[in-house]
Amino acid sequence: MVTLDEERFVDTMREQAEIGGTEDGGLHRLALSDEDREVRDWFTEQLESLGLTVRVDEFGNMFARRDGTDPDAAPVLVGSHLDSQPYGGIYDGALGVVAALELLRTLEAEDVTTEHPIEIVNWTNEEGSRFQPAMQGSGVWVGEHDIDEQYERTDEHGDRLVDELERIGYRGDEPAEPREEYEAALELHIEQGPYLELGDVPVGVVTGVVGFFWGATTFYGEADHSGPTPMHYRNDALVAAADVITQVRRIPSTLGERTVGTVGYVDAEPNSINIIPEEVTMTWGFRDPSDEVVEEARARAVAESEVAAEREGVDWEWEERMRSESVDFADKCVDAVQGAADDLGYENRRIYSGAGHDAAHLSKFCDTSMVFAVSENGKSHSEEEYTSWEDCYRAANTLANAAVRIASGDAA
Amino acid sequence: MVTLDEERFVDTMREQAEIGGTEDGGLHRLALSDEDREVRDWFTEQLESLGLTVRVDEFGNMFARRDGTDPDAAPVLVGSHLDSQPYGGIYDGALGVVAALELLRTLEAEDVTTEHPIEIVNWTNEEGSRFQPAMQGSGVWVGEHDIDEQYERTDEHGDRLVDELERIGYRGDEPAEPREEYEAALELHIEQGPYLELGDVPVGVVTGVVGFFWGATTFYGEADHSGPTPMHYRNDALVAAADVITQVRRIPSTLGERTVGTVGYVDAEPNSINIIPEEVTMTWGFRDPSDEVVEEARARAVAESEVAAEREGVDWEWEERMRSESVDFADKCVDAVQGAADDLGYENRRIYSGAGHDAAHLSKFCDTSMVFAVSENGKSHSEEEYTSWEDCYRAANTLANAAVRIASGDAA
Repeated sequence: MVTLDEERFVDTMREQAEIGGTEDGGLHRLALSDEDREVRDWFTEQLESLGLTVRVDEFGNMFARRDGTDPDAAPVLVGSHLDSQPYGGIYDGALGVVAALELLRTLEAEDVTTEHPIEIVNWTNEEGSRFQPAMQGSGVWVGEHDIDEQYERTDEHGDRLVDELERIGYRGDEPAEPREEYEAALELHIEQGPYLELGDVPVGVVTGVVGFFWGATTFYGEADHSGPTPMHYRNDALVAAADVITQVRRIPSTLGERTVGTVGYVDAEPNSINIIPEEVTMTWGFRDPSDEVVEEARARAVAESEVAAEREGVDWEWEERMRSESVDFADKCVDAVQGAADDLGYENRRIYSGAGHDAAHLSKFCDTSMVFAVSENGKSHSEEEYTSWEDCYRAANTLANAAVRIASGDAA
Repeated sequence: MVTLDEERFVDTMREQAEIGGTEDGGLHRLALSDEDREVRDWFTEQLESLGLTVRVDEFGNMFARRDGTDPDAAPVLVGSHLDSQPYGGIYDGALGVVAALELLRTLEAEDVTTEHPIEIVNWTNEEGSRFQPAMQGSGVWVGEHDIDEQYERTDEHGDRLVDELERIGYRGDEPAEPREEYEAALELHIEQGPYLELGDVPVGVVTGVVGFFWGATTFYGEADHSGPTPMHYRNDALVAAADVITQVRRIPSTLGERTVGTVGYVDAEPNSINIIPEEVTMTWGFRDPSDEVVEEARARAVAESEVAAEREGVDWEWEERMRSESVDFADKCVDAVQGAADDLGYENRRIYSGAGHDAAHLSKFCDTSMVFAVSENGKSHSEEEYTSWEDCYRAANTLANAAVRIASGDAA
């Protein structure tokens, strides 16, 4: 068992939160911004002061390794991301990196040896808010995305990702891919949902990540003057969209306990108070631990789009926007997290992640699991995001001990 | 009876349609644009070649009067507007001005005298698409709007109305208000709805203008991550808005034969595929010939907003955006239009206007009515707007004879 230094851990959390910190106690540290450069410089400094060598790959992903006793043993990867949402919280991502950093500091301070190397990582652009997609750096690293395509992605000002990476000095030399097999990957993250709080437990043992399907339906009606056009003469694209919004709220209730469905985006044209809407595009998305349930939800959203279009006499089409299959984490890693939490005496429960994480990409490459820290009111991606220092610390200690357990060869 | 020259009338319609004409046969002649200046110059030329004096008031409204035989008789006002919607049609507004111009030409050519003067008008900015509100020039003229407030209105580029009026040289010297009592006002306009076509008649005798109420509801929910937030934990502003969109489609069917209800505008924030909508503003509007029915529809939209907000657990508020009471045109003028159409042997029917018109403002100041020309498929405010030359001509002839009837003292 290792025990992180709670005071130093909290100080470090506070220190990182000053870089891009907002007046209201949140964090505005967009990927490849000046603030991202500053926190990367700070991160480098912390690692070098432990005598570690920082490696930066071509996509800006940052690594540093503490050797194990067995030169042939595969490394255990721990970490998360230091970028934030626009006016997001100080925990999302950063908590996982700081916990990993504290682990390395503690091993160094207490002169603990592990059989396997332990490697810390800060992934580039997990958030996907400035450049899409989310989880970009880890996606490139595991070969899910082509690096040259991702380099060309632009932000809303038209700035290319690769230019911004060079501008902040974090386009490294190392290929953005694994150099070898890894023993395991562990990531600590805030839950971003209410399940742990509802169960009154501080620590989540993450068994997998739900799958999702994102689609969009566009309805094509007729733009007529809202005054002289009788109701029976109308083909109103927005009325059709409203039907689907209502049904997406209802579909999950007929499928699974953990199924969710959301219409997050709607765009109406010409969007004028006095004109019947001609064209409306709306997105819809569903998530569930079961890929079959996600597929059923997708099929129902498409069927509801068709029914709504017929009812209103409008044309329609739908398209896939993005999909991700569900992930089941490796028993070895899940058990290590569970064992660590139990040994530490922390109340915990097994939980699916409802959000995507870098760990979901990593799970396609090596055994993986995650630790969740309870989120107050399930809030994230906003300055209201909050986890008490005590709960942050419990989750960090769980991560540290799970990592040491695997790195010591104690996990089956 | 007077008979307009059909060939000259059609030529004149075609001539005006070239000023700001679009490739697809529509018209792009926004208020106070260069095209508006050009068509105003053309209009001035036509009137001056008839020996008439053109007066321009401080708001750019243009008038020219043909004297009657009785120097004390009040004038009869005929006309409409020469501005268009963005990529609108060639008939909306212009048809009413050209018909009035052809009337003056015919009286001149045939040396017809009337007891009352006949005055032609081109109102500034009827469309309200570049500068709000619509029917601005006539609204200022009848004292509905304060001219100094309207001068300050800006377009999407921030250009002030008064500056644009001066730039095109049409800020006149005459006060923008009636100098005397008027005997009547008549306006010819395309219907912009399908009722005449459905009844297979070319000419509408307009008995009044429906009243309307425009409001907006805003729902305030919680912006949460669309993945980890369970359905029962959500307060989704867009789901509440969808309920109201559905109900606004339904409310008219429980009220009146001519009641219409429209949600033309919706804005969701943050409008991201992956975030539960936090704040949604939607407009709603109802029209009916009865102000009581409009008020009932308004009350129901507010009640539905409340129910939808409670159902979804979101906060809400509503506000009035604009309202207009219904207008009943004067029997004297309606009968004159009816009598003219009957005498000319044109099939016609009495009809309410579902859209607002300059004539609605004028009706508060003097006896008023309108002539409608059938609109193919009820289309307007688009390049698809179409009325056959034959039907344009019938409506123009009806307007001319109704005006002569009143100006000759033949209307009771």
